[in-house]
Amino acid sequence: MDIAGNLLIGQSARRGTNGVSYGLDAASGERLAPGFGGATLEDVDAACGLAWSAFDLFRETSLEARAEFLDTIAANILALGDGLIERCVAESGLPRARIEGERARTVGQLRMFADVVRSGDFLEVRMDPAQPERKPLPRANLRMRHIGLGPVAVFGASNFPLAFSVAGGDTASAFAAGCPVIVKAHAAHPGTSELVGVAVRQAVEDCGMPEGTFSLLFGSGREIGQGLVRDPRIKAVGFTGSRQAGTDLMAVAAARPEPIPVYAEMSSINPVILFPHALEQRGEEIAQAFVQSLTLGAGQFCTNPGLILAVQGPALERFVVAASEALTRTPAATMLTPSIHRAFEKSVANFSAHPHVQTVARAQPAAGANEGQGALFSTTVEAFREDALLRDEIFGAASLIVRCPDLQAMHALIESLEGQLTAALHIDEADYSAVRPFLPVLERRVGRVLVNGFGTGVEVSHAMVHGGPYPSTADGRSTSVGSLAIRRYLRPVCYQDMPEVLLPEALRVANPWKVNRLVDGKIELA
Amino acid sequence: MDIAGNLLIGQSARRGTNGVSYGLDAASGERLAPGFGGATLEDVDAACGLAWSAFDLFRETSLEARAEFLDTIAANILALGDGLIERCVAESGLPRARIEGERARTVGQLRMFADVVRSGDFLEVRMDPAQPERKPLPRANLRMRHIGLGPVAVFGASNFPLAFSVAGGDTASAFAAGCPVIVKAHAAHPGTSELVGVAVRQAVEDCGMPEGTFSLLFGSGREIGQGLVRDPRIKAVGFTGSRQAGTDLMAVAAARPEPIPVYAEMSSINPVILFPHALEQRGEEIAQAFVQSLTLGAGQFCTNPGLILAVQGPALERFVVAASEALTRTPAATMLTPSIHRAFEKSVANFSAHPHVQTVARAQPAAGANEGQGALFSTTVEAFREDALLRDEIFGAASLIVRCPDLQAMHALIESLEGQLTAALHIDEADYSAVRPFLPVLERRVGRVLVNGFGTGVEVSHAMVHGGPYPSTADGRSTSVGSLAIRRYLRPVCYQDMPEVLLPEALRVANPWKVNRLVDGKIELA
Repeated sequence: MDIAGNLLIGQSARRGTNGVSYGLDAASGERLAPGFGGATLEDVDAACGLAWSAFDLFRETSLEARAEFLDTIAANILALGDGLIERCVAESGLPRARIEGERARTVGQLRMFADVVRSGDFLEVRMDPAQPERKPLPRANLRMRHIGLGPVAVFGASNFPLAFSVAGGDTASAFAAGCPVIVKAHAAHPGTSELVGVAVRQAVEDCGMPEGTFSLLFGSGREIGQGLVRDPRIKAVGFTGSRQAGTDLMAVAAARPEPIPVYAEMSSINPVILFPHALEQRGEEIAQAFVQSLTLGAGQFCTNPGLILAVQGPALERFVVAASEALTRTPAATMLTPSIHRAFEKSVANFSAHPHVQTVARAQPAAGANEGQGALFSTTVEAFREDALLRDEIFGAASLIVRCPDLQAMHALIESLEGQLTAALHIDEADYSAVRPFLPVLERRVGRVLVNGFGTGVEVSHAMVHGGPYPSTADGRSTSVGSLAIRRYLRPVCYQDMPEVLLPEALRVANPWKVNRLVDGKIELA
Repeated sequence: MDIAGNLLIGQSARRGTNGVSYGLDAASGERLAPGFGGATLEDVDAACGLAWSAFDLFRETSLEARAEFLDTIAANILALGDGLIERCVAESGLPRARIEGERARTVGQLRMFADVVRSGDFLEVRMDPAQPERKPLPRANLRMRHIGLGPVAVFGASNFPLAFSVAGGDTASAFAAGCPVIVKAHAAHPGTSELVGVAVRQAVEDCGMPEGTFSLLFGSGREIGQGLVRDPRIKAVGFTGSRQAGTDLMAVAAARPEPIPVYAEMSSINPVILFPHALEQRGEEIAQAFVQSLTLGAGQFCTNPGLILAVQGPALERFVVAASEALTRTPAATMLTPSIHRAFEKSVANFSAHPHVQTVARAQPAAGANEGQGALFSTTVEAFREDALLRDEIFGAASLIVRCPDLQAMHALIESLEGQLTAALHIDEADYSAVRPFLPVLERRVGRVLVNGFGTGVEVSHAMVHGGPYPSTADGRSTSVGSLAIRRYLRPVCYQDMPEVLLPEALRVANPWKVNRLVDGKIELA
């Protein structure tokens, strides 16, 4: 597969002049050809200029044209064939089956947003017809639709080289909303990024979209990434990554003369709560499933189960033994990058050395470079409460069991947690009355509450919420997965007494776009 | 009407101990009894504690109970009768008819949100049923609803002592979303605030809502207002006021350990664009309507027309003459407070003394204290472009005409404007082709584009947008007027594989709340 190492600025591929970086084979640590030229701030400026020029045209494309564009991106990604899979497996160290599954998810996600665009529901068309005879004052003729915010900067994620990178969820939802996108590729998978970027660029051309609809930049996160977020033509940011990088971008965005929204999906330890009856009845079985979820993809999921809460006692000890046995049998697994691997090792070492933390089990030792060896720890409520370090996410296959004296202590502990993406409850019918008081606090703390499962495996659908209160995300009012993600990049505009011929087609009485509308507050289906 | 000068902290009325302040008769500048004791940070803490305790209960009240609560607030405000009107007229200096109209709007707004709550559409219930047989992986049973963000701090606005203060739009929409509210009363109308506050408190009691659902604090904006925004139990802020105060609150909110959304409605000069044919045909008539809009309520509207754009020539000069004549006949009008009056005088003096600004006309001279004398200025495109001062909002009846050499210059000028709440186009059919290129830039710059009218007079309905890009508001993704305002205080929560009996009623298959639902992405009406 041809990979050139070029920046894609609109339709032009050009060599970046700001240093050279390489993708690495995650398993061996070896450099992969070619080198990627880094972008300069002039490249950022050029991409933003094109995106800005494209915005008014792109956002007014018909629903069908924009849907077709999303479908074409999906088709072009599939047309990359096995070359994409091979490069992505090499760069990420993730198993082929996972990457194939992730490609399917990425393509499915693009097609879902194509359908979302076709339906037109995201426009949220509202009409309050004029009431010229109303007393004491007549009512004007009011129409509302939503339009895109403007060009969006998207940051590729290390852990989803396809589904949350160049043509991932952020890009697909921003395109669907009518926003041009400039992607800052993640350094962990530049080759994968270029391949997908060329597929997107080709779709721009195939579908006759304006040139600046898409650009792809390689280079330093701090210089190029922050430069992008600072550019006045960028109107929103989609990011998945570390808390530090995310809050840095939030600060840059808030300090602009015109602050802009940052949708950063950052850190979460995803509490798993084992209720007494389920723990007693099915503790060993839950332990197996837990270790599978914990070690899936070397634990490199935002929804990885990093915290286990249960009431202390013999049932919990049986769970611990079963989980330990399962983890001990689990091989170490290649992590995404050497730096992620180093950070994992460092955090695990910190937990191991902690005076109030017990190392319960480790996975099999590493057999190669960058292999993360899963770790299971336990501690007490007091230690967990007193040391903020223990409440930090460890990115990788590590989890901490907190033994709670009783359900009240467990409840109080959950109330003290920061915002989380998910919480998973393991419960039987006999637990329901104990569960009820936990639901209000969980709703306040997390974006998704799940029962008898684990948060890994995020369905791309309409009712999904992959979001949650700060700091799990920068903005708990939104989701980054599922069809509602489109709303992040939209804002409402009202047209008052605008003549029909000047109105956007979506707002005309004759409803040429056949969209569902709220008329005088009542839904009228198309 | 009994006014005690007390803080309302939940159901308890207590005397604030942090200094004493008084309402003023706006027309005479005289103190009105009684004195209001200012809140301390301990009072803020007490109100936040109650609000936090109330949140889980209040947000789970049934749709009917919450709607009834909103309707009861409306009824209790009406039951205050003429005493409220008299106090409000005295404190605001606004005419009785205006205040009666504003009361009607306030009551109508509360009732509209009651209907919004009853419909349940704001919950945005979504269901993706389980697909246990799906390959390669089964799909879980997913349900989504929206819940309130948490307790909301609302800042009363000086210019809408009823419709955007204690029980105004921010409060009504936050209550509708299921959020307890703590209002920081505006110093311009403490008596009005207490009267309305008691009506709300009574509704809390009448309807059996939890005590902390509502509190009302008097005191310093900086100490008490920022203290509120800093409190970790406050999860969102509704504000209408100056750009300085709004951006100060944004900074406080962004610097919290957990940043929260601030919905600040701040400053806007609301361009009015006179297109050539309409100007030629109806310039004098438009001038009359313009001066009426400009001087309505002493010009103290966020949507006041502060900027007139037209192509220079004889038609514009006829407009200027007609507007000057109309303004010259208009009496000066009492402004809301001495400090607002002083700020108006100072800004008008700055414009008058500006070397590139011509004073076109003034209204009749002031006849009493705090009377603002309307002012109409004109300038050139060059001067407007070069001096940021000329692009600042003057709060009051002042407007600036910019003579543009041609439509291109007018277009470029609009492209250079900051975000605005509204833009008003005056057009005839012969202007339509000239109008078209202006629409994309206007959509990007404003929340509401209106034709052959003025932005003053904001309909409270479903298709209204009273919002716009920064700095007209802190968050252009939202509206503060109309039913969509409820969305500001909501966030989505997903429930995965949750047993029916543990699900919130709104999400149960049997649909006991009879809400419209999105099932597998398709709308199903109740």
